[in-house]
Amino acid sequence: MLTELGKRAKKAEAVLMTASTAQKNKALFLIATALNENAGDILAANALDIETARANKMKSSLIDRLSLDEKRISSIASGVKEVALLEDPVGKTLSGTTRPNGLVIEKVSVPLGVIAVIFEARPNVTADAAALCLKSGNSVILRGGKEAFHSNKAIADIMRAAVKNAGLPEDCIQLVEDTSRESATALMKMNDYVDVLIPRGGAGLIKACVQNSTVPVIETGTGNCHVYVDEFADLEMARDILFNAKVSRPSVCNACESVLVHRAVAEKFLPMAKTALEKANVIIHADSETARIIADTVPATEEDYAREYLGYEISAKVVGGIDEAIEHIAKYGTGHSECIVTESYSNAQKFVARVDCAAVYVNASTRFTDGNEFGFGAEIGISTQKLHARGPLGLPELVSFKYIVRGNGQVRG
Amino acid sequence: MLTELGKRAKKAEAVLMTASTAQKNKALFLIATALNENAGDILAANALDIETARANKMKSSLIDRLSLDEKRISSIASGVKEVALLEDPVGKTLSGTTRPNGLVIEKVSVPLGVIAVIFEARPNVTADAAALCLKSGNSVILRGGKEAFHSNKAIADIMRAAVKNAGLPEDCIQLVEDTSRESATALMKMNDYVDVLIPRGGAGLIKACVQNSTVPVIETGTGNCHVYVDEFADLEMARDILFNAKVSRPSVCNACESVLVHRAVAEKFLPMAKTALEKANVIIHADSETARIIADTVPATEEDYAREYLGYEISAKVVGGIDEAIEHIAKYGTGHSECIVTESYSNAQKFVARVDCAAVYVNASTRFTDGNEFGFGAEIGISTQKLHARGPLGLPELVSFKYIVRGNGQVRG
Repeated sequence: MLTELGKRAKKAEAVLMTASTAQKNKALFLIATALNENAGDILAANALDIETARANKMKSSLIDRLSLDEKRISSIASGVKEVALLEDPVGKTLSGTTRPNGLVIEKVSVPLGVIAVIFEARPNVTADAAALCLKSGNSVILRGGKEAFHSNKAIADIMRAAVKNAGLPEDCIQLVEDTSRESATALMKMNDYVDVLIPRGGAGLIKACVQNSTVPVIETGTGNCHVYVDEFADLEMARDILFNAKVSRPSVCNACESVLVHRAVAEKFLPMAKTALEKANVIIHADSETARIIADTVPATEEDYAREYLGYEISAKVVGGIDEAIEHIAKYGTGHSECIVTESYSNAQKFVARVDCAAVYVNASTRFTDGNEFGFGAEIGISTQKLHARGPLGLPELVSFKYIVRGNGQVRG
Repeated sequence: MLTELGKRAKKAEAVLMTASTAQKNKALFLIATALNENAGDILAANALDIETARANKMKSSLIDRLSLDEKRISSIASGVKEVALLEDPVGKTLSGTTRPNGLVIEKVSVPLGVIAVIFEARPNVTADAAALCLKSGNSVILRGGKEAFHSNKAIADIMRAAVKNAGLPEDCIQLVEDTSRESATALMKMNDYVDVLIPRGGAGLIKACVQNSTVPVIETGTGNCHVYVDEFADLEMARDILFNAKVSRPSVCNACESVLVHRAVAEKFLPMAKTALEKANVIIHADSETARIIADTVPATEEDYAREYLGYEISAKVVGGIDEAIEHIAKYGTGHSECIVTESYSNAQKFVARVDCAAVYVNASTRFTDGNEFGFGAEIGISTQKLHARGPLGLPELVSFKYIVRGNGQVRG
C-alpha cells in the first residue's frame, strides 16, 4: 500500500517538477483560503484527537501542542501564504561555463523529488511541510503521529483538494494513514520512490531514522547547545544571553542546555547566573567547582553533559580556558548552535573557526537559529548533519541541481 | 581498532580544518615529490599484489588496472600537484546578511570533517582521494580492496610521512589495514567519527553501502545511460555520439548502455548505428521492432533495459515519441547521464527539463560527465543521488558550511 502511495508521489512529481511558480503559488493561495474556509472540519477532527488524548491521559503540555482553534488555523493558513511569497528555489542557474570544445554546461537547481517527512504530534507540521515542499517542486509523503491523525487527515484532505483545484496533481501531497511503527520503517526503505527523508521530532525518532533508513536522511533537531562565558566576557551580557538561551523557550532544539564558565570569572559570574536562572526555577547540574561557588545545585554526571533537557534544567562546568571549552563542546555537543560571550577579538575568532556546528554565535543567544530569525522565511527543520545542508532548512535547501550540457555533436577523444 | 583510527582522524581533523591553503598545498607538493622519489618502494609493494593476483588467476584486465609502473606513479604524482593548484574550497563566504536586530550572519564553507572512502582494486584512488580530501580540509579514512593492499599501504605511508613533514597531522590520511568485509561494514556504522562515506566501485559495493551505512552516504557511479535519437535528429551526428558514448570506454559509468530510437527514423538510423557498432563488435540486445530492421541482434529482456553492461553490449528499443523515451529513462535510468540527439528546439527543452539525472545532454556524448571534462579538475566520484551534490564531485562538493553569527548582546524576544 505504501508502495502504491510512493508510485503516485513519483507520478505527481513528474508534473510538479516543471510546474511554473505562478501555478505553485496559485495552489498555495487556494490552500490558505481552503484551510480558513474549512476550519470547522479541521476543528471537528482535532476534537476527536483531543478526546483520545485526554482518555489516554496525555500530558497537558502535549495536549496543548496538539490543540487547534480558529486562531491557530488562521495562523497556519497565513504561514502557507507566506511560503507563496518566498522566492521559488527551482530553475535557478547556479553557475555555467563554456568549455574549450564548445560544450555549454549549466548547473541548474531542480527539486529533490519525493520527500518523506516523519513527524510527531503537531498538526501544523502537516501544512508547513506540505507548503514548503510544494513551493520547492517536491512531492511530499507525510507520516504524522497517531495522536494527531484526524487533524492531519483533515488538513491533508483540504490541501489535496486545493492543489487539484489549482490544476496540479493532488498526489503531490499524501498522508500515510497507517500510523504504526511499521509504516515509518517501510517509508525509510522506499529508495525507489523516496529521494530524501526528513524526520521532525524527538531524539528517538531521529535516531531511528538514521539507524534504519536506506533513503538519504537529513538529520534534524537534536540540540545540546552551549553558552561559553569567556574570561573576557561582558558578564551582564553573558547573564542575559544565558538566561534567554535557557529560559525563553526551553522545549526547543536551539535552547541552551549547558553553560561553561572560564575559571577567571567563575566566582563573579556564577552567582549572577544563579540569580537570573532561579527566577525561572532552573535546576543547575553542576561540577564540583561550580557547586563550591553557588549553592542549591545538584551534581552533574557525565550523562548530564550529553543531555538535551528540553526543560528548566542546565548543566554547568568551570573550564580552564577557551581550548577546554572547545574540546568540551566537541565531545558533548550535537553540532547545532554554540555561543561564546567575549570581548576578546582573538577568542571570538578562534571559537568561530574551531567549533564545528551549524550556527556558531559570538555575543548572541543560541535561540536565533531559526529560519525566520535568519531571514529565510519558513523552515522544515534544522539540520545538524554536514551533508547537503546545515542549520535552518528553508526553500533553498529543499532543492538539488542538475547539469544541462548543450553541444553540437561533441564526442570525447 | 577501527574506533581508534576514527578517533585519530577526528583529532587530526581538529587541526586540518583550520589549516591554511599554503600549508595544505605544501603538504600536497611534498606528497607529489615523495611519491616520485619513493617509486621503487611502491613498485616493490605493487609486485607483491600482482604476484598474488596472478596466483589467484585474476582476469588480465583487472591485473592491468592493478598494475603500476614508473609512468603511472609519475602520473599519480602529477595528479596530486594539480590538486594543489586548484582553488581551496574552504573558508569562502557563500552569503551573508545583517538582520534588522543587528545580527550579522555569514554562511561560510567548512570541511565536511572525516570522510571514509571505500574502494576497489585501483591503487591510484588512494592518492587521488587523499589529495582531494586534504585540499578540502577533510581527514580521510581509506579502505581499499585486499587485492591492492600492499600498493595502497606503500602509497599511504609515503603520503602520511609527507604530510608530517609539512607540519600537518599525519592521521588526516589513514588506511584501514583490515580488508575484510567486516571492516567495511564497521566503517559504515562509525557515526561518531565519520561524517560522510563515499563508496567507489561496482554496483554491489554501492548497494552494500546504501543498505548498511548509518553514516550519510554519497551514492556514486552506477550509470545506465541512454542516448535517445529523436525524430528530428541529425542522424550522422546521432551515430557518432552513440558510437563514442558506447565504445570510447565501455567500462566506465558514463558509457551509454541503451539506445532509444524514434519510430519515424528507425528504418534509416538503426542500420547506420549497426554499421558503426559492429566495428567494435558490440552485441545489440534489441526489442522486436529493432530486430525486424537490423539483423544479428539478440532479444532484449526486461533485465537488459536495466543493465549496466560496462562492456561491448547495448540494449536498443524503438519508441513512439519523446514522451515514451522520457518515461523509459525514468523507469530504467540510474540518474547519471542521459542524452537526446535532436535539431528540435522544443524537444531539446522538454528533454532537459523532464529527464531527472545528474547530467542531461543535447547533442553531445554522455562520456563528458567527468570532473576534468566539466572543468572541475580531479573528482572523487560521480554522484547519482540528489542530496548534497550531483554529478562529478570535485573540491567544491567536498565541503559543508556553517553559519557564523556575530552580535553585541542580542537575545530573542
